[in-house]
Amino acid sequence: MANPSLLILPGDGIGPEVMAQVRRVIDWFGANKDLVFDVSEDLVGGAAYDKHGTPLHDDTMAKAQEVDAVLLGAVGGPKYDDLDFAVKPERGLLRLRKEMDLFSNLRPAQCFDALADFSSLKKDVVAGLDIMIVRELTSGVYFGEPRGIHKEGNERVGVNTQRYTESEIARVARSAFELAKRRGNKVCSMEKANVMESGILWRDVVQEIHDAEYPEVELSHMYADNGAMQLVRAPKQFDVIVTDNLFGDVLSDCAAMLTGSLGMLPSASLGLPMGNGRPKALYEPVHGSAPDITGQGKANPIACILSFAMALRYSFDEGANADLLEGAVQKVLADGVRTADLMGPEGGTPVSTGEMGDAILAAL
Amino acid sequence: MANPSLLILPGDGIGPEVMAQVRRVIDWFGANKDLVFDVSEDLVGGAAYDKHGTPLHDDTMAKAQEVDAVLLGAVGGPKYDDLDFAVKPERGLLRLRKEMDLFSNLRPAQCFDALADFSSLKKDVVAGLDIMIVRELTSGVYFGEPRGIHKEGNERVGVNTQRYTESEIARVARSAFELAKRRGNKVCSMEKANVMESGILWRDVVQEIHDAEYPEVELSHMYADNGAMQLVRAPKQFDVIVTDNLFGDVLSDCAAMLTGSLGMLPSASLGLPMGNGRPKALYEPVHGSAPDITGQGKANPIACILSFAMALRYSFDEGANADLLEGAVQKVLADGVRTADLMGPEGGTPVSTGEMGDAILAAL
Ligand SMILES: CC(C)[C@H](C(=O)O)[C@@H](O)C(=O)O
Ligand SMILES: CC(C)[C@H](C(=O)O)[C@@H](O)C(=O)O
Repeated sequence: MANPSLLILPGDGIGPEVMAQVRRVIDWFGANKDLVFDVSEDLVGGAAYDKHGTPLHDDTMAKAQEVDAVLLGAVGGPKYDDLDFAVKPERGLLRLRKEMDLFSNLRPAQCFDALADFSSLKKDVVAGLDIMIVRELTSGVYFGEPRGIHKEGNERVGVNTQRYTESEIARVARSAFELAKRRGNKVCSMEKANVMESGILWRDVVQEIHDAEYPEVELSHMYADNGAMQLVRAPKQFDVIVTDNLFGDVLSDCAAMLTGSLGMLPSASLGLPMGNGRPKALYEPVHGSAPDITGQGKANPIACILSFAMALRYSFDEGANADLLEGAVQKVLADGVRTADLMGPEGGTPVSTGEMGDAILAAL
Repeated sequence: MANPSLLILPGDGIGPEVMAQVRRVIDWFGANKDLVFDVSEDLVGGAAYDKHGTPLHDDTMAKAQEVDAVLLGAVGGPKYDDLDFAVKPERGLLRLRKEMDLFSNLRPAQCFDALADFSSLKKDVVAGLDIMIVRELTSGVYFGEPRGIHKEGNERVGVNTQRYTESEIARVARSAFELAKRRGNKVCSMEKANVMESGILWRDVVQEIHDAEYPEVELSHMYADNGAMQLVRAPKQFDVIVTDNLFGDVLSDCAAMLTGSLGMLPSASLGLPMGNGRPKALYEPVHGSAPDITGQGKANPIACILSFAMALRYSFDEGANADLLEGAVQKVLADGVRTADLMGPEGGTPVSTGEMGDAILAAL
């Protein structure tokens, strides 16, 4: 059988630096676990714009459709801030999500024992935290038409459209219920059904899918504003949260920050099964391109490495190897190995991006 | 000269209970400070629906347009959850906001010294916190057309429209800059200009108003997802935050929860100046109707009382009397007087809603 294939898109800012460490991890699994990947690499975001005048070349898009999984670093940077909307680095990422139809974005917000002190929240509020946010990723206000800025009389008017179909809601709801069954068996769905009709439809469809297909999973509904409050007040009340593209963007970042260590958090974006049964998939760290520390060897590669662990689990059915990799990360943290972003008052051994890679390989 | 007029709309749940204490405070200012208000009272939300079949009767709407300020308690409750969207309790509140054109919603997130331990965040992260969130309140996805649920083929589709005109953005931006001048002189504007064209217009117009009219105020821009993170990570970096209706809903609740004491937080919703120079205005606590504790004398009346303090300041130019009332609240808290929601590990004197009112009157 052919080796499974990976397309690596390091992107901008610290993307290439953290991805370099992931490549070492990939090689380790090839050499030691007989898990050999066919790896190709290409450009996305500002890096692609610099070379091709577009944040995602059609050839890259085509390649992404063919491989078994895409690993992405990060996109964007101040250099590209004044570009036209249509060629901004972000559009490359959004095109990948949309054309690969990656409707289910899994964002774990997990508090690592060794880092619980690192949160801005009190230790007892976040210690042991383990939430999975499932964000709808291919629809809603991110993609709805009509959109744009036009003139009415003397005034500019900005318009975007929040639009959800029943089937778009149903499929991401299913994905949340499936995950919940393998976790704490609890789903909380968030919207603004008190204000938005699209929120009413969201709530109704999630409830219908629950009643018809997952009656054994505990389901609750919460308004998204209350959701933001509850995440700050008592995050451990949640197991799986399912929400739309825009609320998911804001609420998952809020949840991520509860853990105090954004440099630790991976994500998976999953679509429909391909011919080989694997879902279309893209894995990326939750953090951004961090232009302020780019090129200084300061970036924390763990989020990107844990994104590869998610790939092992969700794309390649290699749960044991994913556990192995996650265990190595836990061990390194417990040993006090710390990139700059993880350096709390309690100290530790300061390391560079590459040295963190060394430590994780050693732990493996 | 005629007395200034107040319309009191206690609404649902704990609304009537907390408003009863505000009435006592209003009476105190009449008796002791020669500040006599003409007070009328009416129904809103579920209470109005029960009597009139609508969450806001036209006569009430007309009265609200005439008075100098409206004080509102809270709307909503499980009893009304299955009502049609058009007659839900929330629609009464939304109609007041829209028809009074209350475009500028001021939501202070302030951490009270006596309650800093009460936050789920570490004390040093929130002690002394004093943010003012200015939320646009009459436009955006709350009111944009088209909206609704319709059928396409066999599927239901839910649609809402995010729509902002240049002048809608400009006026709320001005209101934020004006506030900043009287505070820390810093405004941070939040949107998703990397994804939404309405966000691009938002950012551009805020910048233009700044450059033309408020160049001396420090202005920054932040994506709303990052805003949610920064609020959790290091909220004291902010002075005034200005944002749209939907982001404002979520972010202000997130900010409110940082303080750990939702029962403490007031809000003001301000419109254009009326003939007498006063802005149209509605004041309400940030907390909701709290059906779980309704009728038990447990509700904390402070948020509603501080909303009246905001009315003194913003509608009646009674800054000194607002200070007096806020000072009385501070004193009562420092003395350890605590409704159930403020009862932390450090203890205090447990009091009922009415006893909290007694204590504040005594401190006055
Ligand atoms: C980079 C940006 C387009 C993106 C989003 O808004 O979805 C990011 O914030 C994210 O959450 O992945
Ligand atoms: C009650 C509801 C309509 C309202 C809103 O969404 O604006 C509330 O959450 C608020 O923030 O005042």
